[in-house]
Amino acid sequence: PKKFLSEMVEIAKQAKKIAKDDPRKVIHSLKVGLALNLVSLFYYIQPLYRNFGDYATWAVITVVVVFEFTVGATLGKGINRGLATLAAGALGLGAYHLTTITGKPGEPILIGIFVFLQAAASTFIRFFPRVKARYDYGMLIFILTFCLVSISGFRTNDLLDLALKRLYTVLIGASTSVIVSIFVCPVWAGGDLHKLVALNLERLGKFLEGFADEILNSTEAKQSENDVQFRGGMNGILDSKNREEILANFARWEPGHGQFMYRHPWKQYLKIGNLTRQCARRVEALNCYLNPKTLASKEINGMIQEAFSNMSSESGKALKELALAIKTMTMPSSPNPHVTNLQMASRNLKSFLKSDFCEDVNFLKIMPVAAVSS
Amino acid sequence: PKKFLSEMVEIAKQAKKIAKDDPRKVIHSLKVGLALNLVSLFYYIQPLYRNFGDYATWAVITVVVVFEFTVGATLGKGINRGLATLAAGALGLGAYHLTTITGKPGEPILIGIFVFLQAAASTFIRFFPRVKARYDYGMLIFILTFCLVSISGFRTNDLLDLALKRLYTVLIGASTSVIVSIFVCPVWAGGDLHKLVALNLERLGKFLEGFADEILNSTEAKQSENDVQFRGGMNGILDSKNREEILANFARWEPGHGQFMYRHPWKQYLKIGNLTRQCARRVEALNCYLNPKTLASKEINGMIQEAFSNMSSESGKALKELALAIKTMTMPSSPNPHVTNLQMASRNLKSFLKSDFCEDVNFLKIMPVAAVSS
Repeated sequence: PKKFLSEMVEIAKQAKKIAKDDPRKVIHSLKVGLALNLVSLFYYIQPLYRNFGDYATWAVITVVVVFEFTVGATLGKGINRGLATLAAGALGLGAYHLTTITGKPGEPILIGIFVFLQAAASTFIRFFPRVKARYDYGMLIFILTFCLVSISGFRTNDLLDLALKRLYTVLIGASTSVIVSIFVCPVWAGGDLHKLVALNLERLGKFLEGFADEILNSTEAKQSENDVQFRGGMNGILDSKNREEILANFARWEPGHGQFMYRHPWKQYLKIGNLTRQCARRVEALNCYLNPKTLASKEINGMIQEAFSNMSSESGKALKELALAIKTMTMPSSPNPHVTNLQMASRNLKSFLKSDFCEDVNFLKIMPVAAVSS
Repeated sequence: PKKFLSEMVEIAKQAKKIAKDDPRKVIHSLKVGLALNLVSLFYYIQPLYRNFGDYATWAVITVVVVFEFTVGATLGKGINRGLATLAAGALGLGAYHLTTITGKPGEPILIGIFVFLQAAASTFIRFFPRVKARYDYGMLIFILTFCLVSISGFRTNDLLDLALKRLYTVLIGASTSVIVSIFVCPVWAGGDLHKLVALNLERLGKFLEGFADEILNSTEAKQSENDVQFRGGMNGILDSKNREEILANFARWEPGHGQFMYRHPWKQYLKIGNLTRQCARRVEALNCYLNPKTLASKEINGMIQEAFSNMSSESGKALKELALAIKTMTMPSSPNPHVTNLQMASRNLKSFLKSDFCEDVNFLKIMPVAAVSS
C-alpha cells in the first residue's frame, strides 16, 4: 500500500507538471466533456430521440473520434468524416441495389465481392503519399461506411433511411466538435507552428551567443555544464521536424484567424524549420570539433579565438533578431546590421584561416531572411 | 477529357510503382478485404445473426479500424480495443446503476456529470507521454464505450445485454483481424525495424567508402554528382528517427517469431539508430567542410588526403561489416580488423594534424559494436 501511495503521488506530480506546462491541455479535456454532453442531448430530449433513435450513438462516436487538440486537426477529421460518409453511403446504396437484381440467394455473394473489391482498392489508395497525408482518415471512414451500408442492406428494408440517418448524425457530431473546438478557447495549429519555428531560431541564436562567450574564456567546468544545456536545446531543434510537419498539415485545414488571415504560407515555415535544423547540425558539428582544437595548439588558438567568438556572437544576434521578426510578423530591418557584421567577421576569419569552414554557416543564416521576405 | 486521361495514366503509374516497391502493400489490401468478408458472415448466416443482430456492425467497424499494416500495430490496437471495451463497459454499467437511485427526472443530469468527468479525466490522461505512446487508442475507446453504455442506459431496458454484445462483437472483430494479420503473409514491424537499422548503417558505410575514393581523385563534376546521392541517402538516415520509433513501438506488441524469438531487445535498435544518425550528422558536416578545404591549400592537402581517405574507407568497411552482422544476426568477429585498422589510421592522422576532429567519429563507430555485443 505504501508503494502504491508513493506511485499515486508520482502520477499526481506528473499530471500537475503537464497541466502547468500547457494549461490548454486541461481546457481541451473540459471541452471534450462539454461536446459529449451537448451531443448526448439527442438521447435525453424526446423529440430529438424520436427522429434519430439509436442512430444517435453515431453522433457520440463522431465527437469522441473527431475531437482533437487543435482546431485544424478537428476540422480536418470532421470534413474527412462528413464527406466520406456521404460518398460511401451513396455508393453503398448503389452497390446494394445492384445486388438485388440477382435475388436473395445470390445476394450475399455479390455483396461480398463488392465489399472485397472496395475494401482492397481503398486500402491500397491509402498508401498513396498524397492521400495518406491529408485524407487517410477519410478513406478509413469510406471503407467503414460502404461496408456498413451495403451489408446492412441484407437485413434492413429501408436502407435509404439508414444511410441518411447515419449521415445526419455524423454531420451533427462533426459540427458539434468543430464549433466547440473553434469557439471555446481555440488552439490553432498554425499559431503553434509559428511559435515553434521562432523558438527554434531563438534557441539556436542563444546557443551561438553562449558559444561565443565560451570560446573566449573556456574552462573545463563551464564547458561540461554548457554541454548539457546544449544537448537539450539542440536535440529539441533537431527532433522538431516531425512535429512541424504535423502542425503544418493541420494548419492548412484552418480558416484565417487573428494574425493569420487569408492563405498563410505554412509551407514556408517548413522551409525555415529545415534550414534551422541544417544550421543546427553544423553548429553541433562545430561544437564537437572545437573542443579538441582548443586543447591542441595554444598559440594559433589565441589568435583565432577572437575572430571566432565575434562571428559566433554576431550569428547568434542575427538569428535572434530573425526569431523576433517572425514572432512579431514584421519585416526584419534589411540590411540587417548583424548580418553585415557577420559577413565582415567571416571575411576576416577567412583571410586568416584560408580554409574557412564556417562559410556554410554564414550562407545558411542569410537564406532564412530571404525566405521570410519572399 | 484528354487532361483527365493523362492524369489517370499518371495515377496508374504511381500505383504500379507503389505496388512494385513493396508488394506487401497489395497483399495487405487483399487481407483487409478478406477479413471484412469473414466478419460479415455474421450478417449473412442466420443463426449467427439471431444471436447478435445489428450489434454485428461493431465487428465490422472493429475490423476496419483495427486492421493495420504490421502485425504489431494490429495486435496493439486489438488488445487496446478489447481491454478498453471491457473496462469501460463495466464502469459504464456501474455508473448507470448509480444514477437509477435518483429516479427518472434526475437521471440525465447525473449521467451527464459522470460522462463529463470521465471524458475530461480520460482525455487528460491521454496527454501523459507513457500513455500516449502505447495506450492512446485504448483511452479513446474507453471514453467511447463508457459514453455509449452509460447514455444508452437511459433508453434501453437490458443494459447488461447491450454491454456484453458490444464486448463480444468487438472481440470477434479484433481477433479476426489479428488472426488474418498473423496467418496470411504476416508483416512484422520488428523485421522491418531490423532491416531499416541495418540498411542505414550500410548506407553510411557505403557513403564513407565513396567519400574515400572521392578524396583521392576529386574533380568538380564528380563531387556534385556525389552530392546528389549523398543528400538522398543522408536525408534518409537523418529523417528515419520517427519511423524507427513507431516500428519499435509496434514491435514490442509482437510475439516471438522467426529469427526474433523470445523478448527481443527492440530498444537497443533505437540506440543503434540514434548513434547512426549522430554519426551521419558528423559525416555530413565533414563533407561540407572538406570541400572548401580541398580548394584552399594544395600542399598540405596532398599529405593528409591519403590518411583521410584511408580512414574513411576503413570506417566505411567497418560500418558495412556491422550492418551485415546485424542483418545475419551473428556476432561480429571481434576484434574487428577494420576497427583496428581504423584506430591505427586515426592515430596516424591525429599525430599528423594535432587537432584530430575525427576522433569522435571513431568513437561512435565502436559504440554500436558494444551495443550489439551486449
